Amino acid sequence: MECVFCKIINGEIPSKKVYEDDRILAFNDISPMAPTHIVIVPKEHIASANELTEENAEFISHVFVVAAKIAKDLGIDESGYRIVNNCGADGGQTVYHIHFHLLGGKKLAVNLA
Amino acid sequence: MECVFCKIINGEIPSKKVYEDDRILAFNDISPMAPTHIVIVPKEHIASANELTEENAEFISHVFVVAAKIAKDLGIDESGYRIVNNCGADGGQTVYHIHFHLLGGKKLAVNLA
Repeated sequence: MECVFCKIINGEIPSKKVYEDDRILAFNDISPMAPTHIVIVPKEHIASANELTEENAEFISHVFVVAAKIAKDLGIDESGYRIVNNCGADGGQTVYHIHFHLLGGKKLAVNLA
Repeated sequence: MECVFCKIINGEIPSKKVYEDDRILAFNDISPMAPTHIVIVPKEHIASANELTEENAEFISHVFVVAAKIAKDLGIDESGYRIVNNCGADGGQTVYHIHFHLLGGKKLAVNLA
């Protein structure tokens, strides 16, 4: 099992946890692009958005609800934030365990591409 | 009712529809940032991610499953894509009806912020 996010979930690799429950884990990105940059992952290993089905995608709604709660806890709910999922090479996905970036704490770039 | 996305959903404002079902609508962005740039909205008016709860967020998982299907239909599933939700001013949200950008068809910028 070589997946770095599975190792973070299992505690084999340390992380600065922001939130955890039975389904998802949120931790600080080690190379932050913004003052707030948190990675949110499902505990179930799903490689990317290409592998999503109505059966396994239920956690994503929960990711967004938790992301909004984290934003509120960090005091960036009113200023704003961005939630990003990258899939594949063109998307810039580097770890093939589906994950969501929560970014905020500054005025983010307008261009999404 | 002044929400431009509600008007698109209701057909008061035309759009180039990519996908529609009882819960969500996907249409081409009028100012595309990438060769593929599709906006996906829930038919229910929810202003932003700040308004999400476990009760009203169920559609988001569906958005991601549909986004992955659209990417496959457009032939960008293997090359890759990005799904983005902007919330509030710092996130760059311009229309306060929650929406998800599906971007692809080129190598997207690495910087998300």
